[in-house]
Amino acid sequence: MIVPRTGIGVDVHAFAPDDAPRPLWLGGLLWEGEQGLAGHSDADAVAHAAANALFSAAGLGDLGTHFGTDRPEYAGASGVTLLAEAARIVRGAGFEIGNVAVQLVCQRPKFSPRRAESERVLSEAAAAPVGVTAATTDHLGFTGRREGVAAIATALVYVRPE
Amino acid sequence: MIVPRTGIGVDVHAFAPDDAPRPLWLGGLLWEGEQGLAGHSDADAVAHAAANALFSAAGLGDLGTHFGTDRPEYAGASGVTLLAEAARIVRGAGFEIGNVAVQLVCQRPKFSPRRAESERVLSEAAAAPVGVTAATTDHLGFTGRREGVAAIATALVYVRPE
Amino acid sequence: MIVPRTGIGVDVHAFAPDDAPRPLWLGGLLWEGEQGLAGHSDADAVAHAAANALFSAAGLGDLGTHFGTDRPEYAGASGVTLLAEAARIVRGAGFEIGNVAVQLVCQRPKFSPRRAESERVLSEAAAAPVGVTAATTDHLGFTGRREGVAAIATALVYVRPE
Repeated sequence: MIVPRTGIGVDVHAFAPDDAPRPLWLGGLLWEGEQGLAGHSDADAVAHAAANALFSAAGLGDLGTHFGTDRPEYAGASGVTLLAEAARIVRGAGFEIGNVAVQLVCQRPKFSPRRAESERVLSEAAAAPVGVTAATTDHLGFTGRREGVAAIATALVYVRPE
Repeated sequence: MIVPRTGIGVDVHAFAPDDAPRPLWLGGLLWEGEQGLAGHSDADAVAHAAANALFSAAGLGDLGTHFGTDRPEYAGASGVTLLAEAARIVRGAGFEIGNVAVQLVCQRPKFSPRRAESERVLSEAAAAPVGVTAATTDHLGFTGRREGVAAIATALVYVRPE
Repeated sequence: MIVPRTGIGVDVHAFAPDDAPRPLWLGGLLWEGEQGLAGHSDADAVAHAAANALFSAAGLGDLGTHFGTDRPEYAGASGVTLLAEAARIVRGAGFEIGNVAVQLVCQRPKFSPRRAESERVLSEAAAAPVGVTAATTDHLGFTGRREGVAAIATALVYVRPE
């Protein structure tokens, strides 16, 4: 009997201030004309949450464990690159990936018109199905006030059958 | 080997203002004497999060994908109706539903006395086990300030064996 | 075919005020020199979220259902004790535990240096793999303002094969 393992990942990024604008990367896509998120990385909360959920399911820590400040070769790496690398590490540890599901929580951008495009990019990066859905918070909380975006992801992995 | 798929769903609704009171629908139940939630729908965050998690697990988008403003026949539909329809759509796409688990996060109403009743209503709607649990946030954040309620759900589905 | 069940659990605790300091218990560990969390219990949000996710997966309610104020023998019980007892109850209801994954969300303490130690303590308590990861919220929201900490967990259980 094969029992899969579940994982969970959260990532939050604040919007960049108006006097230090940045491009918006979210769900592996560039969003032209939208306010960007702050961070040392590309701040792609969707891709980061997906990677965190994969590491979590495999019991391998999180993004900080693998791509922290002691790994300068990942400084500035895109969220998509980190997700692809996370999937590679999880497989290298003997797991297969079932799927990853990400819930983006924000008021902007309006994600649904590009949902399918984002899912293609992220699924290709992870070489596994990655679904992305989006919700607003009715203008409540930090996401509702448009201070930042949050993403929460769950993933299933299982030990590769011999 | 059958590997299930995991999904995640979040839904948030703000309480209706005192000068525009509404009934409170939550977890498929009417809560007499409690402040209601605002929204075009019945604002049942528990049922909506459950439906979102089902769609997410099946990789079929979210509530907005299926019941958006371009589907006027669902305007005003109850959360229970949307959950039942979501389960029907997921099964129609070739999946069986394992279970759905919803975590309600709010200060009010006190959910636990009606938990079993809510689980019966939602499980009957989805024709699958739907569990609901409740937590407060120690008066922190928008749920703690009673500005609104949040619900977060996870679901497992699997491809129907031939 | 064995289809596992998924569960979700959230727990939030506020930091204790400076004029009523408490020790910090988090992830089953004592954090010397760190501001503690308020609560009747030890306020270990990580252990509580893990226990809630186990109950949720088994469809057995939540911490309040099992260790509420009508069960005074659990007053003051540690989070690790509650997690161990939750695992015992879930197994007693006929389930095996696959794994539990917890995402801690807070600015402080810095969790990663003690992640492996926490995972050992919690996994021993649950007699099943419990993983813990940590994220900050970029100083947003109540966790970002250091008003409290949040933990969100997912768990997989399955009916014990005969």
